[in-house]
Amino acid sequence: MARIVMKFGGTSVADLDRIRNVARHVKRETDSGHEVAVVVSAMAGRTNELVAWTREASPLHDAREYDAVVAAGEQVSAGLLAIVLQAMGVNARSWLGWQIPVHTDNAHGAARILEIDGSELVRRFGEGQVAVVAGFQGLGPDNRVATLGRGGSDTSAVALAAAVKADRCDIYTDVDGVYTTDPRIEPSARRLGKVAFEEMLELASLGAKVLQVRSVELAMVHKVRTFVRSSFSEPDAPGMDDFDNPPGTLICDEDEIVEQEVVTGIAYARDEAQISLRRLADRPGVSAAIFGPLSDAHINVDMIVQNISEDGSSTDMTFTVPSGDMEKSLSVLEEAREAIGFDVLQSESGLAKVSVIGIGMRSHAGVAATAFKALADKGINIKAITTSEIKISILIDGPYAELAVRTLHSVYGLDKT
Amino acid sequence: MARIVMKFGGTSVADLDRIRNVARHVKRETDSGHEVAVVVSAMAGRTNELVAWTREASPLHDAREYDAVVAAGEQVSAGLLAIVLQAMGVNARSWLGWQIPVHTDNAHGAARILEIDGSELVRRFGEGQVAVVAGFQGLGPDNRVATLGRGGSDTSAVALAAAVKADRCDIYTDVDGVYTTDPRIEPSARRLGKVAFEEMLELASLGAKVLQVRSVELAMVHKVRTFVRSSFSEPDAPGMDDFDNPPGTLICDEDEIVEQEVVTGIAYARDEAQISLRRLADRPGVSAAIFGPLSDAHINVDMIVQNISEDGSSTDMTFTVPSGDMEKSLSVLEEAREAIGFDVLQSESGLAKVSVIGIGMRSHAGVAATAFKALADKGINIKAITTSEIKISILIDGPYAELAVRTLHSVYGLDKT
Repeated sequence: MARIVMKFGGTSVADLDRIRNVARHVKRETDSGHEVAVVVSAMAGRTNELVAWTREASPLHDAREYDAVVAAGEQVSAGLLAIVLQAMGVNARSWLGWQIPVHTDNAHGAARILEIDGSELVRRFGEGQVAVVAGFQGLGPDNRVATLGRGGSDTSAVALAAAVKADRCDIYTDVDGVYTTDPRIEPSARRLGKVAFEEMLELASLGAKVLQVRSVELAMVHKVRTFVRSSFSEPDAPGMDDFDNPPGTLICDEDEIVEQEVVTGIAYARDEAQISLRRLADRPGVSAAIFGPLSDAHINVDMIVQNISEDGSSTDMTFTVPSGDMEKSLSVLEEAREAIGFDVLQSESGLAKVSVIGIGMRSHAGVAATAFKALADKGINIKAITTSEIKISILIDGPYAELAVRTLHSVYGLDKT
Repeated sequence: MARIVMKFGGTSVADLDRIRNVARHVKRETDSGHEVAVVVSAMAGRTNELVAWTREASPLHDAREYDAVVAAGEQVSAGLLAIVLQAMGVNARSWLGWQIPVHTDNAHGAARILEIDGSELVRRFGEGQVAVVAGFQGLGPDNRVATLGRGGSDTSAVALAAAVKADRCDIYTDVDGVYTTDPRIEPSARRLGKVAFEEMLELASLGAKVLQVRSVELAMVHKVRTFVRSSFSEPDAPGMDDFDNPPGTLICDEDEIVEQEVVTGIAYARDEAQISLRRLADRPGVSAAIFGPLSDAHINVDMIVQNISEDGSSTDMTFTVPSGDMEKSLSVLEEAREAIGFDVLQSESGLAKVSVIGIGMRSHAGVAATAFKALADKGINIKAITTSEIKISILIDGPYAELAVRTLHSVYGLDKT
């Protein structure tokens, strides 16, 4: 007997047939004797409809009212799933964010969970009741509905798993796990059995859109073992009820991964733009003078590389932004030209970032060199490099993205089981 | 300066253009310096959609889950109206049933309001804030959402008006008031300026579908002056801001109606069926033996007439039910034949009930005789009659319904101003 939090996204509850399929997944777990809480998103398309209405009501609107409107979506899917479960003979009830309550801060529209009081849910687990929890929503300090921002149901699920001390948090999604790279680019990509939290954080933020970054952070802090698995699998397919090793990818503490690979996966992001400031005065505070105004303009800066200038007496700063933010970034920097004190401003869009990720590279030399040589052998020019303990990111020309992904996937042997 | 509760139904908030029209009605009142609470229904069609989903989830379902699902409709319209009002410069916020809270009993799906704590709303009126209240919903003793049953937003509005001691409750609807009869049947029907609560109760329950019966009962108990007026009027049309006499019909205490008409209106109901039990043993408890089983079967019995039998030694009982319930009623009665002890069971469907209503008839003789003679003159056969202090109901053959309505409307001079 274990305690499991199961999370189903919008496509998994898009209509009543799919909700019935979700209910069969839940029933499989309760039939196995587990205590279960299910977190659901709104039915696919509903949130977009509600959001569109708030925009039609007024382009600028009170985030508290936005939250009241948008949270209705999860309220509906939670109630419907509870009804379907009851019809299948499963003792279930729905819980809205304010009922549990899921306490959040006051940042309506993008609230953070502060605390979840799981005591009543735990008491009812003891009575054999399944909790069907509306994801994405909580109760702000103003006693009003607060939503966690888009994709927040993953975060709801992980936070709930931490609150009720669940043995596992299963994120059911439209893919069956986390892959060594995007299978649409590299057909030999393999599903990973286990990924360390730190690796998943890099994979998620780099474009492997399986899990929200915030939910992975939360899982790492609270050491919530999180399974990514497919909601479209047959609920009673062989092995689906295997508690220790269900089909999917386990995201867990690195200690739990006995055989660590040097490289776990290859991520990529398209539509990157590079901006370089040449011959900056090499003085304290110059970085703040550059990135402060960009941050104020809500521009998300990614790779940052600083190097000594060609002339040896000043410094060069290069960083990337999403291509769509390039023009805005350039005008922000031109406005701040005097405060920053640069000589030349250069930019280029249409680039791609390819990243090699793996906890094992901390203890292995030569991982970066292997990547550089492999790309050079294919004639792929490297525009910038950043490294962390578990990641090497390489900026290249956009059209070479697929070739680079396939090359790196192969050179680290990720296509071999 | 006065305090006004305004209520808008589903067709009045069916889309954002209509919600903007509602907001203009609200702004007219706040511009006049009034304190305003607005109660809204779900956008037209939404409640039906949500109800259909709960049925698709399971024909038999937990009313508490039904409530969680269905209450989402008003949550959305309340939030959207608050956003639109804010965009027009009106200080407004939405309130859900659990936030005020509107305390109800535990009869989920058809809950009754027990108490509304209006103190926080009143405090905010003082700060110039408009309360936009999700109608139809409250908070049950189980700390879960409870809905008041279909059409419950009228009740929400009247109960809220009583709780905040509003000077007036304006029910905006798709008709511009209460008429002497259905204008589709009698084009000379006039809009009534004032109707007493007791009269409105009879008019509402008899098929003039302007206001929910429960809301009129509540208005009568708490003496809430209630205006029925059109939501499709131009918000800034002449006279719309006339506090004492806005266009519409005032439902009020009879003391406020100086010139009482003998007859106020003619109501009708189609698709009635008549059931007669002949030669019943005339003993105590026979009525309970008949109507108990019908009530248990959720059959709504209307007119009840008891008379001595032809043979003089027993009694006959006649009553009406909706035509759709006739077969079910007959089988219930056949099952209970032994317990009831009747001789013959007769029935007839396709009948109509026409009712003459007026507080003034309490002090006027001959009102009933006038009706009987007028119908006889047109050759309309009377099948049953019931009377109360302020109402005469007459059961006739269905095809004569329109003729009877027009005849009675004319004979009491209701077509004359």
